[in-house]
Amino acid sequence: MSSPGRPRLVGRRRPGATPADEILDAAAELFTTRGYTATSTRAIADAVGIRQASLYTHFPTKAAMLISLLDSTVRPTLESARGLLDASRDPGESLLALATIDVEWLLASRWNIGMLYVLPELAGEDFEGFRAARSELRGIYRQLVARCRPDLDPGDPDLDLPFRVVESVIPHRQDHPGVVIDAARWAVAATRVIGIG
Amino acid sequence: MSSPGRPRLVGRRRPGATPADEILDAAAELFTTRGYTATSTRAIADAVGIRQASLYTHFPTKAAMLISLLDSTVRPTLESARGLLDASRDPGESLLALATIDVEWLLASRWNIGMLYVLPELAGEDFEGFRAARSELRGIYRQLVARCRPDLDPGDPDLDLPFRVVESVIPHRQDHPGVVIDAARWAVAATRVIGIG
Repeated sequence: MSSPGRPRLVGRRRPGATPADEILDAAAELFTTRGYTATSTRAIADAVGIRQASLYTHFPTKAAMLISLLDSTVRPTLESARGLLDASRDPGESLLALATIDVEWLLASRWNIGMLYVLPELAGEDFEGFRAARSELRGIYRQLVARCRPDLDPGDPDLDLPFRVVESVIPHRQDHPGVVIDAARWAVAATRVIGIG
Repeated sequence: MSSPGRPRLVGRRRPGATPADEILDAAAELFTTRGYTATSTRAIADAVGIRQASLYTHFPTKAAMLISLLDSTVRPTLESARGLLDASRDPGESLLALATIDVEWLLASRWNIGMLYVLPELAGEDFEGFRAARSELRGIYRQLVARCRPDLDPGDPDLDLPFRVVESVIPHRQDHPGVVIDAARWAVAATRVIGIG
């Protein structure tokens, strides 16, 4: 373990274009392998090779790092999803495109950040923005599924199934570390689960 | 909050046929709503209305409670699953029966215990028995899927899809608290995802 207050290492220990990215890489590793509650900001600073005070200039709290990590798994997909809602597109093709992009972003980090979706801490108000973004994304899936399957009632749980299959890439990745997952194939399964594609 | 060392309440606070069941109910609530790391055995004893010393006569450690909770979501299903592997049965029917039983057990507790499957702590050796049981269950799913879909390679990720759809009832329940989930319908989706049923 490193001693407190030591200077920044000359070389970078962590991948990332910016110091904030390096911090997020370390936070993602520690949150997913040791646990969010069990990880201190001090441990994150040590894992980056910076002082704790430097870390705070980028992220004022541990929650701020978690929010940034969670957002990175949802916001780019949500941007694409809004465009895919365009009513002139074929809903089955839009659903498949959305599922593919979503799986790609869930796999984009070298750490399995989606594991953190079930943290009890996410019920707190700090995470309201993330919860709203993920909820909007789920709603867009439901709208596309409803267009593909107009026979389904608004309360039918099948409306959520493609979203569930997409997110099940998270436990799959956890159970098969190191195995390469084909996002396009996983997306096909996410449409097949409602009997289309 | 209750004071330390107070006597057992006359009435029971928790559902459960035995004191151990009451303790597990409290542990499941606190682990799923506050987090495993953030929950002390003291908090669990307080939530049951017993002394911490009494709690230790039932469960020597916090990990022992977690193991018992995790096992309750997998072991009854695994017992059924072994029987369903009988080669004289129709594999599609066996897969549907297994998925139905599995969803039922994942929904059996009033707390969403499956949320705890992604805890980093589960990588430790205390949880080897649970990991082996869940892995055996996943293997039985794979065998049944392979019988239904003999065209799939042993390395095909589709072999895992029914298991993934079944377990996706865990985040679904988290996102829709209080909504009743039909296990038989969820199980049909778990077979449809591989194009059968």
